[in-house]
Amino acid sequence: MTVKAYGAYAPDQALESMDITRRAPGAHDVQIAIDFCGVCHSDLHTVRGEWAGSQFPCVPGHEIVGRVSAIGAHVTQHKVGDLVGVGCMVDSCKACADCGEGLENYCDNMVGTYNGPTPDAPGHTLGGYSEQIVVHERFVLRVTHPQEQLAAVAPLLCAGITVWSPLRHWNAGPGKKVGIVGIGGLGHMGIKLAHAMGAHVVAFTTSASKRDDALALGADEVVISKDADAMAAQAKTLDLIINTVAAPHDLDAFLQILKRDGTMVLVGAPDSPHPSPQVFNLIMKRRAIAGSMIGGIPETQEMLDFCAEHGIVSDIEMIRADEINGAYERMLKGDVKYRFVIDSATLAA
Amino acid sequence: MTVKAYGAYAPDQALESMDITRRAPGAHDVQIAIDFCGVCHSDLHTVRGEWAGSQFPCVPGHEIVGRVSAIGAHVTQHKVGDLVGVGCMVDSCKACADCGEGLENYCDNMVGTYNGPTPDAPGHTLGGYSEQIVVHERFVLRVTHPQEQLAAVAPLLCAGITVWSPLRHWNAGPGKKVGIVGIGGLGHMGIKLAHAMGAHVVAFTTSASKRDDALALGADEVVISKDADAMAAQAKTLDLIINTVAAPHDLDAFLQILKRDGTMVLVGAPDSPHPSPQVFNLIMKRRAIAGSMIGGIPETQEMLDFCAEHGIVSDIEMIRADEINGAYERMLKGDVKYRFVIDSATLAA
Ligand SMILES: [Zn+2]
Ligand SMILES: [Zn+2]
Ligand SMILES: [Zn+2]
Ligand SMILES: [Zn+2]
Repeated sequence: MTVKAYGAYAPDQALESMDITRRAPGAHDVQIAIDFCGVCHSDLHTVRGEWAGSQFPCVPGHEIVGRVSAIGAHVTQHKVGDLVGVGCMVDSCKACADCGEGLENYCDNMVGTYNGPTPDAPGHTLGGYSEQIVVHERFVLRVTHPQEQLAAVAPLLCAGITVWSPLRHWNAGPGKKVGIVGIGGLGHMGIKLAHAMGAHVVAFTTSASKRDDALALGADEVVISKDADAMAAQAKTLDLIINTVAAPHDLDAFLQILKRDGTMVLVGAPDSPHPSPQVFNLIMKRRAIAGSMIGGIPETQEMLDFCAEHGIVSDIEMIRADEINGAYERMLKGDVKYRFVIDSATLAA
Repeated sequence: MTVKAYGAYAPDQALESMDITRRAPGAHDVQIAIDFCGVCHSDLHTVRGEWAGSQFPCVPGHEIVGRVSAIGAHVTQHKVGDLVGVGCMVDSCKACADCGEGLENYCDNMVGTYNGPTPDAPGHTLGGYSEQIVVHERFVLRVTHPQEQLAAVAPLLCAGITVWSPLRHWNAGPGKKVGIVGIGGLGHMGIKLAHAMGAHVVAFTTSASKRDDALALGADEVVISKDADAMAAQAKTLDLIINTVAAPHDLDAFLQILKRDGTMVLVGAPDSPHPSPQVFNLIMKRRAIAGSMIGGIPETQEMLDFCAEHGIVSDIEMIRADEINGAYERMLKGDVKYRFVIDSATLAA
């Protein structure tokens, strides 16, 4: 099957319309007519070859929502017409301990939704900036939000699960004080989700102009992280910090506001390392710095169901496919509230 | 009461014999006739003024064992003649959440056994390189080892608990693969304790010459950490690493050998920071870097009881008080197996 997509033929080229092929659904495959696809920073880094290993042509996109358009003979959990989503993964070994625990995201053989190994043409996976995609049923999520919210559900598949997973793993909830560092695509979802989980949410931003927005998103407090006095007022009070800022920055300022046994979870990897944190800040209160990468399939389904139940979606700005290059430039400036989403109907234009 | 001690009058002076005073025991105090005191790297750093805030005269020593020589009117848990120990703390606020959980080591008002604030002369606490010490009963531990092992029990009070606490907190035990990095005062106790807890123990050292010793201490495997192939063979297999090396070194090599959800616990703070670890190594397997500082009083008692039951003591080299300056020089070269212990009877010589 040949479908329209948007991608780049080389790292120094703009994204443009292209035709790609999708395999015929196998016995365990689900074919999805994509309605919307969110735009993630990883898309930009990969398609511009800023990370090692980008393969071309490159079609990014791993915040995919749409409707099942065909199923394989053995598929039982999805049927034609169902609203579904696909996130950062389309396959894994399905046999290792990580897969066995539903943490396919940590499988050594996890296959990314784009730029991952596949026998399909052209030899690497092509993502969600396309009209259709074919995915193993295990990696297809049920979407129970109302149809009219579908576009705003798309970013839950990467931005949402990336913050949900550590919030759940480190027990955010009532009685816990949770910090969210950075108010962008990930951070705005972190505020919404931590708030809905019942935690006391403190948003940290370098931009005083984001204060009102953060409060509107659900933050109980907003701290301008450049304000040393405001940071000192938080000393030793947070149970958990989800740090969404990938640019190198001072981690010690955030370690010092963690309680004993508090953890700061990094969900973004900077291109160059953060300044080395002071070991003293870890030792003094048995604090930890941890990392977390997206989330497994069962917890992604749990997150989607939670969001449907609580009426949570992403704040988005819809774009046409041919606006993607300009959208990347705006993303780099942080000029988006808070996620671009491509209307897949515009791919064929 | 005036007693003999060994200490320094200034950071650039050698330790020498001095007379110090101890308060008369208050209602909740225990007075201890010290038999032995272990020699910790912290002693050296403090008495040489290498850390900020050293106060003089400085009498180091926080690995103290001896016999109760007097008790206050309200003391019920200790009686004259009992074998007891005192570690890194002699007081805390006794009212905060940390103290309430028996984690006095994390109390913001913990009072160190030396160089801590006290109304006693000379205004800061004086440690265990002395004939007698007076300590609040809460900070006095019961020693149930046989009398003849007493000297070798002393290092359990700092080196022992410093590794015991993270081993317990992060659930070392049967079925767990635990790495101990560095085979010195702390590391040799880490190997013994992790082995006795039932873990599979992998000792990491830069010195091939320590291989046989590490195996004798209880390691199941020894890895020369400079050997990239040997390190690669451990990739993603360890549940927990206790890193006792305070000198700046490559943390990434150890992060990469942790399993998913594995933690590396740093128990030593370097003077200058470690090279900044790669966030990628944390994110990829939800790994963590944590810190841990000595241990609380209940867990110190638990550790001492465990060691008595399992016949565990430190490997020591006994010295006279007047050998302490030379012992420090040997410690700096790593030339001790594995802890110097001062025979307190030599203080009066
Ligand atoms: Zn993404
Ligand atoms: Zn797997
Ligand atoms: Zn010590
Ligand atoms: Zn306290």
